[in-house]
Amino acid sequence: MSSRMSSNLKYLFYPRSVAIIGASRTPGKIGYEILRNIIGFGFEGKIYPVNPNATEIMGLKVYPNVLDIPDEVDLAVISVPARIVPKVLNDCGLKGVKVVVIISSGFSEVGNVEAEHKLVEIARKYGMRILGPNVFGVLYTPSKLNATFGPMKVLKGYIAFISQSGALGIALMGWTFLERIGLSSVVSVGNKADIEDSDLLEFFMNDKNSRVILIYMEGLKNGKRFIEVAREVSKVKPIIVLKAGRSERGALAAASHTGSLAGSDEIYSAAFRQVGVLRAKSIQEAFDWARTMVSQPPPLNENVVVITNGGGAGVIAADACAEYNLNLMDLPEDLAAKFREYMPPFGSTRNPVDLTGEATEEAYGDSVKVALEDSRVGAILVLYCHTAISDPGMIARSIARSFIEARAPKPLVVSFIGGVECYEGLKLLNDLGVPAYPSPDRAAAALGAYYRWARYAGIVKK
Amino acid sequence: MSSRMSSNLKYLFYPRSVAIIGASRTPGKIGYEILRNIIGFGFEGKIYPVNPNATEIMGLKVYPNVLDIPDEVDLAVISVPARIVPKVLNDCGLKGVKVVVIISSGFSEVGNVEAEHKLVEIARKYGMRILGPNVFGVLYTPSKLNATFGPMKVLKGYIAFISQSGALGIALMGWTFLERIGLSSVVSVGNKADIEDSDLLEFFMNDKNSRVILIYMEGLKNGKRFIEVAREVSKVKPIIVLKAGRSERGALAAASHTGSLAGSDEIYSAAFRQVGVLRAKSIQEAFDWARTMVSQPPPLNENVVVITNGGGAGVIAADACAEYNLNLMDLPEDLAAKFREYMPPFGSTRNPVDLTGEATEEAYGDSVKVALEDSRVGAILVLYCHTAISDPGMIARSIARSFIEARAPKPLVVSFIGGVECYEGLKLLNDLGVPAYPSPDRAAAALGAYYRWARYAGIVKK
Repeated sequence: MSSRMSSNLKYLFYPRSVAIIGASRTPGKIGYEILRNIIGFGFEGKIYPVNPNATEIMGLKVYPNVLDIPDEVDLAVISVPARIVPKVLNDCGLKGVKVVVIISSGFSEVGNVEAEHKLVEIARKYGMRILGPNVFGVLYTPSKLNATFGPMKVLKGYIAFISQSGALGIALMGWTFLERIGLSSVVSVGNKADIEDSDLLEFFMNDKNSRVILIYMEGLKNGKRFIEVAREVSKVKPIIVLKAGRSERGALAAASHTGSLAGSDEIYSAAFRQVGVLRAKSIQEAFDWARTMVSQPPPLNENVVVITNGGGAGVIAADACAEYNLNLMDLPEDLAAKFREYMPPFGSTRNPVDLTGEATEEAYGDSVKVALEDSRVGAILVLYCHTAISDPGMIARSIARSFIEARAPKPLVVSFIGGVECYEGLKLLNDLGVPAYPSPDRAAAALGAYYRWARYAGIVKK
Repeated sequence: MSSRMSSNLKYLFYPRSVAIIGASRTPGKIGYEILRNIIGFGFEGKIYPVNPNATEIMGLKVYPNVLDIPDEVDLAVISVPARIVPKVLNDCGLKGVKVVVIISSGFSEVGNVEAEHKLVEIARKYGMRILGPNVFGVLYTPSKLNATFGPMKVLKGYIAFISQSGALGIALMGWTFLERIGLSSVVSVGNKADIEDSDLLEFFMNDKNSRVILIYMEGLKNGKRFIEVAREVSKVKPIIVLKAGRSERGALAAASHTGSLAGSDEIYSAAFRQVGVLRAKSIQEAFDWARTMVSQPPPLNENVVVITNGGGAGVIAADACAEYNLNLMDLPEDLAAKFREYMPPFGSTRNPVDLTGEATEEAYGDSVKVALEDSRVGAILVLYCHTAISDPGMIARSIARSFIEARAPKPLVVSFIGGVECYEGLKLLNDLGVPAYPSPDRAAAALGAYYRWARYAGIVKK
């Protein structure tokens, strides 16, 4: 691949101008939704709708052909019937477009492999890059670019999300907003005729706006290259993969969905493990992990401290720590003595540290502070069960304040168990940058995944 | 155990009168919270506060001693300091109280084993049953009885929840309300000096208001009896156990929490499996399973059909079905032909049945109807990814209507993936009695657990 082609990839994320070929005046049409999202999400570059049968859409001048645009075009989004795509793509080449997102379907995913090869040939001729075909678009929050026909609203954050599935990817965009999960990017890779996961990994590795790369994957076109690239990227930032088609039946479904040959699941697992790729088993797990990784510094060392106000939650957390290879440190006597100041006599300094049901917001804030300030502690897991004598909102504030005042020196993950007030407390913590989950095992799993990555990257010793 | 003692257990759930010994006028005190909950939750029997230093609390006449109450007392809730408990308990015995809930702590959980034995001796002398000591109380929605110091509001439903942990049990009461999960009962078993899980299993087995029994367990006092009882109960209704203390560290934490000897985890697992007890690994999983079991009829046969509008969600579901031993049936041609009427030509009748992103609410309603009406289909899993052209609320209504019109002949579980509109759709489905989850794997796991139980109970063939 020429360096020009490689460098052109950046225009997928940082275009100075975008042409929407197939822009439409009809709500519900893809060419309408994409234009609406580009405008509505606040893109600050130039926007050029292209449609031979219109003169103005959403207040913007419309051009009959991309070649008629009196300006350079960095990114073109094509949403026209499959049979017209080659002609339009060729026009883009003549125009000097850097990257083309081909939304249109009707190519290899329905067996039309030849037509797809043709697209790649045209693009290569002009040094253009192609995302797609058969994609829902690209989103990059640092550029305020939402060139997708998914939801318009997405929270800004540090997770780069790559999806091989269209419907699932779009649905998850909405879900992340509901769950207050921030994204740097969403890339729909579709048929991967040109741009594939490896290219995106290379871009995101050097992208300071992305701290974790999360991939929904059904299959790989070039597994060897992916593994080589992932090996290097994983040393810099975590890669989480939800690889579907694990089972025989799932692999069959994947084959009929994206035409992916899922390959032996054991081979994927072994290869991923070797190069530090974290394999998640569910959507929830993947985003749970990512939420902790983007907001927290890496663990300082292998010693985890669990702080709780309920013995049962502590037992569940201890089980989860064992499952996810987290080492509950045996507290040195001087440290145990400090914790004892914040609990009644029947509390426990056996890790999990049990502040008991009498724990107030001060006890939480102060004991979290102790754990944050002691450099022998590598990471902290805080659990809270709603009690009649404490207010989850105040507990949340108290924990977050200690974390912020200590300047976030090590990972802190939290779980609140209870009703609507706990739910509000969880939202508050997440909004303040402290990852918080509704159950202890999910919090422990997220921390466990972070440790797995940190061990691979050599940040903590294995 | 005498039959009188055994029959007295029913007064824990169906008392005609309740005495609250240690009732208090001070908000925040346990003796206040329990009285407030009993009154506020609408208990229709007689309520007798007992406190030698008060004459009226919350508008009710207060008695100095339980013996002064001019009426029979079926249930007494004791919340007084540990050292006074034996005297008060003896008074209860003299009064002819049937069941006593001893809230007070300070017994075997802090090493005070002798004092606890003494309580049992007193109770035995009078044929009384004891719940506790060291509990947060009992709740039974059919009797409008909330004799706990947990939250006052709980949704009525069919899950009987037994908790060995206090703080966790209280926190989960609030959580079930948030998650719109209905409960028939919450029983805090605490130190299990007398009433233990097995007694409660026997009661709930014959309780038409309870369809599933869900236990948070750290340890058992009499494992052999539990297994014998569970074997019989499991034939009638599912038992789900979240057994904590799985790991060495978790077992240590359990020992310091409830004094439970967790025992070898493998032994628990093997014994549970043998007698049909379903072991959940997390709180979420346990309640996910229960939600499906209480609302859905058992599977008709081993053939599961998955209906989706997104290939990716279908692949994830197919993987989950394999993991949870659900058999995706190969559709007979006549059935496939019926589904084809509700999808475009590029849809798929390879199970998962893919209606494609073009699926409307009618397509969902009609295809679910086809699966409901065909007796070769044993259970249905419906997936929906939010798309721009469909409204999750309308999809939810359409699915629920088909289910209700077909008179719920087989289990239907649903997953919606997307933003806030999907969240509202999930709530609507759950409120209408169709279990709905935010991810395909959770829906599949719930159905998988139901099948595991149905195979044990001989409802579907293994």
